[in-house]
Amino acid sequence: MMGLIRATCDRIEPVRADRLEAARARQLTLTKPPGSLGRLEEIGNRIAAILKTTRPNIKRKRIYVVAADHGVTAEGVSAYPRQVTYQMVFNFLRGGAAINVLARSCQVEIRVVDAGVDYDFPPDEQLISRKIVRGTANMARGPAMTRRQAERSVAVGIELARAAKLDQVNILGTGEMGIGNTTAASAITVALTGCDPSRAVGRGTGIDDAGLARKIAAIERAMEINRPDRANPVDILAKVGGAEIGVMMGIVLGAAAEAIPVVADGFISTAAAALAVLACPAARDYLFLAHRSAEPGHDLLIEYIGLRPLLDLEMRLGEGTGAALAMHIMEASARLLAEMTTFEEAGVSNI
Amino acid sequence: MMGLIRATCDRIEPVRADRLEAARARQLTLTKPPGSLGRLEEIGNRIAAILKTTRPNIKRKRIYVVAADHGVTAEGVSAYPRQVTYQMVFNFLRGGAAINVLARSCQVEIRVVDAGVDYDFPPDEQLISRKIVRGTANMARGPAMTRRQAERSVAVGIELARAAKLDQVNILGTGEMGIGNTTAASAITVALTGCDPSRAVGRGTGIDDAGLARKIAAIERAMEINRPDRANPVDILAKVGGAEIGVMMGIVLGAAAEAIPVVADGFISTAAAALAVLACPAARDYLFLAHRSAEPGHDLLIEYIGLRPLLDLEMRLGEGTGAALAMHIMEASARLLAEMTTFEEAGVSNI
Repeated sequence: MMGLIRATCDRIEPVRADRLEAARARQLTLTKPPGSLGRLEEIGNRIAAILKTTRPNIKRKRIYVVAADHGVTAEGVSAYPRQVTYQMVFNFLRGGAAINVLARSCQVEIRVVDAGVDYDFPPDEQLISRKIVRGTANMARGPAMTRRQAERSVAVGIELARAAKLDQVNILGTGEMGIGNTTAASAITVALTGCDPSRAVGRGTGIDDAGLARKIAAIERAMEINRPDRANPVDILAKVGGAEIGVMMGIVLGAAAEAIPVVADGFISTAAAALAVLACPAARDYLFLAHRSAEPGHDLLIEYIGLRPLLDLEMRLGEGTGAALAMHIMEASARLLAEMTTFEEAGVSNI
Repeated sequence: MMGLIRATCDRIEPVRADRLEAARARQLTLTKPPGSLGRLEEIGNRIAAILKTTRPNIKRKRIYVVAADHGVTAEGVSAYPRQVTYQMVFNFLRGGAAINVLARSCQVEIRVVDAGVDYDFPPDEQLISRKIVRGTANMARGPAMTRRQAERSVAVGIELARAAKLDQVNILGTGEMGIGNTTAASAITVALTGCDPSRAVGRGTGIDDAGLARKIAAIERAMEINRPDRANPVDILAKVGGAEIGVMMGIVLGAAAEAIPVVADGFISTAAAALAVLACPAARDYLFLAHRSAEPGHDLLIEYIGLRPLLDLEMRLGEGTGAALAMHIMEASARLLAEMTTFEEAGVSNI
């Protein structure tokens, strides 16, 4: 299993500077003052370079919404009961959740993945069943997953990215659902950055002060008991991560290996992306951060990765909601580069 | 003419608090933690309250792209020659400009308006001809427009908003094209805020240091010669504004009077919106600011109006490009409120 992860990292090539330069050169010919589309130009150029063209044509956008449960909920770290994870999976499948509305609005296809939900779903062809655990173990008492489970979760993500490539998806995104998973993302943030747990922790779905204190205490205990190796992403993932986080880490690595632009949603997705970047720094060339989450730990991960999010709308829902909106902006950026006329074609005087 | 402007302002009613409250109450029933969609909830609630429903249904989105020339270009304030205004109008009509691409991407209809271009366009049913001037006079030597021209430009905007209402447009936006119009917007910013001209001036389409100095000097002379009355929006518009700015001011007032949410694009559109808010403070309830422009004067206008822009992508193109992207987010926000299932409908446990 570790072989697949390593082989995937080995396949990831840095995006070529000459391809970025070709996109920049085309931008200068388009009917607008140089640089006047701001970040839309940078985004379009990077998508073009990833897709190895100066006229990127985005036909399919897909978000994998990956669900799993978390043993750390036993510590009272969430405002919602654990069964909300599987209930929300049904909501995704029936089209009534926020991500379904935004997917329709942004013309993104969503694929729901069960990576570790503590529930037996009836067979449903809309649900991709890749159950690695039935909820992780409680990280405050030992590792959340075995090393082998963690590796399997990453492998699942790599395979999902491969499937997207075969389906000719042009932009991939990650989203998640898992009661308790802001605690896992906060713990990963602590493991990666060495920050104090209190700085990496927020109110998640909306816990009160006592819950916040329990969340900080749970992370402190998890770090003490598990001592994750900050240089080893799979060690961090196994000890304080989660099955959906591993799958999303794999999606980022797989997308980079398949040369597909990939956008991470909010706090939990970014934690997974940060593990992917630690596993293979070149994966960052393929990665976009959708938005700045209202979760305080997100800023630490954004700084760790070193990319600027596209949006800042104080969202903190997850599910891929920010990724859907960001993908629309990414597609628009690609279309500007591909479809705008040049000064010469339009007969407009240039400077 | 002044009668129409006054009558329009009199028709604008503040958005009712109970309607906002009804939208907020519905948000709490939807399958997400309270407040977790952040600004998307505020945006959706305000659209709902404006449209007098808790399930806003956005079917038509329209941007008026208003073009005009500016006499102040004689002072050497722009990097591009004046004929680029009419050349870009042809580009809009042929579908090759940035706003055309974004309009397609965001499913927004655009309507191109000639408010004061210094060019005789051949008849074209795609072009709305409302020429008020053939370019304004040079504000550095006297008023840019007569009072009557200024009033007519606002009246044109009010009528365009009325036409949009008759066409059942649900969200309106403003965009513009006019070589030299960042100078007019900067002068309006100085007139409204009393700031030093150097703080309100940026590089527009990309002038060099000498051009920037000429731009500041032109605005200083314009303020000295014209002495616009900071409490009188039509006086400011006439003396240091422009025909497209007057039309956009009228669109904002007309949209508010017709109870249509209206989104101002960037720096120049926001200058027009600020004049509308000065004319009628309640118009602000209907106004959305699309994005924070890279033009430095924009921050002063944003503060003057007191609304937060939706996006911050370092754009500085105008044309309505930011408005198109913002409208997509506005529509998505409305759809979330209208289309998400409730906890009860979805059988999801609530707190």
